Amino acid sequence: MKQRIKRLHSPAYFHSYAAVGGFEEKRGLLGEKFDFCDTTDKFGQKTWELAEGEMSRVALNTALSKGKISHKDVDFLVAGDLQNQCVATSFGLSSFGIPYLGVYGACSTCTESLLLSSALLDGGDYDLAAAVTSSHNSTAERQFRTPIEYGGQRTGTAQWTATAAGAFILTREKRRAAITEYMIGKIISGETSDATNMGGAMAFAAADTILSYFKESGASPSDFDHIVTGDLGKVGSHILREILSKEGLGLEELHTDCGLLLYDEKKQDIHSGASGCGTSASVLAAHFLPQLELGKLRRILFLSTGALMNPSILLQGQSILGIAPLIKIEGKSVLGK
Amino acid sequence: MKQRIKRLHSPAYFHSYAAVGGFEEKRGLLGEKFDFCDTTDKFGQKTWELAEGEMSRVALNTALSKGKISHKDVDFLVAGDLQNQCVATSFGLSSFGIPYLGVYGACSTCTESLLLSSALLDGGDYDLAAAVTSSHNSTAERQFRTPIEYGGQRTGTAQWTATAAGAFILTREKRRAAITEYMIGKIISGETSDATNMGGAMAFAAADTILSYFKESGASPSDFDHIVTGDLGKVGSHILREILSKEGLGLEELHTDCGLLLYDEKKQDIHSGASGCGTSASVLAAHFLPQLELGKLRRILFLSTGALMNPSILLQGQSILGIAPLIKIEGKSVLGK
Repeated sequence: MKQRIKRLHSPAYFHSYAAVGGFEEKRGLLGEKFDFCDTTDKFGQKTWELAEGEMSRVALNTALSKGKISHKDVDFLVAGDLQNQCVATSFGLSSFGIPYLGVYGACSTCTESLLLSSALLDGGDYDLAAAVTSSHNSTAERQFRTPIEYGGQRTGTAQWTATAAGAFILTREKRRAAITEYMIGKIISGETSDATNMGGAMAFAAADTILSYFKESGASPSDFDHIVTGDLGKVGSHILREILSKEGLGLEELHTDCGLLLYDEKKQDIHSGASGCGTSASVLAAHFLPQLELGKLRRILFLSTGALMNPSILLQGQSILGIAPLIKIEGKSVLGK
Repeated sequence: MKQRIKRLHSPAYFHSYAAVGGFEEKRGLLGEKFDFCDTTDKFGQKTWELAEGEMSRVALNTALSKGKISHKDVDFLVAGDLQNQCVATSFGLSSFGIPYLGVYGACSTCTESLLLSSALLDGGDYDLAAAVTSSHNSTAERQFRTPIEYGGQRTGTAQWTATAAGAFILTREKRRAAITEYMIGKIISGETSDATNMGGAMAFAAADTILSYFKESGASPSDFDHIVTGDLGKVGSHILREILSKEGLGLEELHTDCGLLLYDEKKQDIHSGASGCGTSASVLAAHFLPQLELGKLRRILFLSTGALMNPSILLQGQSILGIAPLIKIEGKSVLGK
């Protein structure tokens, strides 16, 4: 099966970006680096569903504002979230009036939206794209598992769905960090139907993408400062490293996972780590992009990881499917500005 | 607000395609033109959710088979459906192993997936793309409205969710029909929260896209044989024509709607027409593309229409949002083969 690496003719530069979060994100390891956190998690709304939409709106608004551009200058928006029918995105972002392409890749949505934005910009007919991704603990947990009020004991493999959104403005004009390559991921069985072990299920897809990338590209892991997965957490990261080692690709400390960077496990009860598509989106915006822009990092491989499933299909005996699209992001020291 | 029309550098030609349906689709106006219909609606599966996935798989398999190509030759797949988290698509199509981009545009998904496939092919680095869209009456009705067994009386504005899938293989090599332009749609309020009047809600988005297209392109409606909307049905089509007339753009008989072409209202109890993202996908494959390939039609504007909502968000007092991405499809007589 073919799985081509697409080298962009014109890199998709990050013009500006923003990370927005809630209570746990503020208390986490990157809390001070978020552009804004609402510690009520409510963002002034009456329901959690609308709160997530408002969080996305604040994220995009902040990215536009930091980039000193108007929503009227953005040619298109690629965005998504975890709610049924992606309503956080459509209801939260409709007021901008930006032509919209909705995507669903579960927790891989951040990378998928950046990949598609860079592909469309590459055609040369658009100037500015926006990519936005969100998740909210209080909408995701009751939709995928049990209502929070139920108070069910969480398993050791369980992850904490982040209340977070990341928004990115991309341009073809030269800036200090850019997407230069992408590779679309395949759907890979996660070999489990346990919805409290999403990291374990997604590790197989991450491994497939990483192995394909290094086979196809001829690149070496040491060409990268980090190979960053989305939200495998502790359990999933362990499985990923084990699979890769067996295949002769030991990443060792080069591998890092956004699900392990967001919270402080010493003081936060997050079990296996963070999850939700806001995880990789906010960690990219709050942690990796600033370092790439400053030249502290040369280049990273970035692959958000998604678990394709819903509760009904798992009750019908199916295994969780995983997917992990990939983008290569290069910084100031490589791009030469 | 900008809304650019993208003229493809290299048209995205239809290499092959297939329409697959169920019981009502077989009895409908296009029944004989479908490649395959399972009149049990079950496609050999134990649940409706898995049946929809299997229908998608059969559609893609048929399109590949008609085109005499292997799934191994397809570079990427852009696909989606209406089920929560788009599980019909991910579970139905995972066995092909084709690199996958999941999209969610409600009933606009067919046009969105074709638009994105043509955009990615336009970069020149891929050879073959697949776009697949499905809906199933027995999965959609119980998810968005009430279980079918409940037997609630349907309103006059209600539409019948089609049990149908359309699959399309696109190539940069010259064939007899091709996508030559696209325009991404904006999210437009449908001014109602009545989930039994989706056509009425989506008409506003269709009107916005059509008005923008003719304003930006300078084209005249008479340049087209048909201006085809997705699934507005009777009620939505009436509202669309009324809005356009008020704006001085009388389409008259140039406008047609896939929701009015699928079933035979004389013998089928479908109220305002067909709906569901399988509607526009199957009608494009069974009805319009063959005519474009034969030179019976020169060119059409094709805009599937999507209602962005879920039951929870409507119960929370929100209005249905609409979206209508657009593609221009030209046939043999224009493309010159």
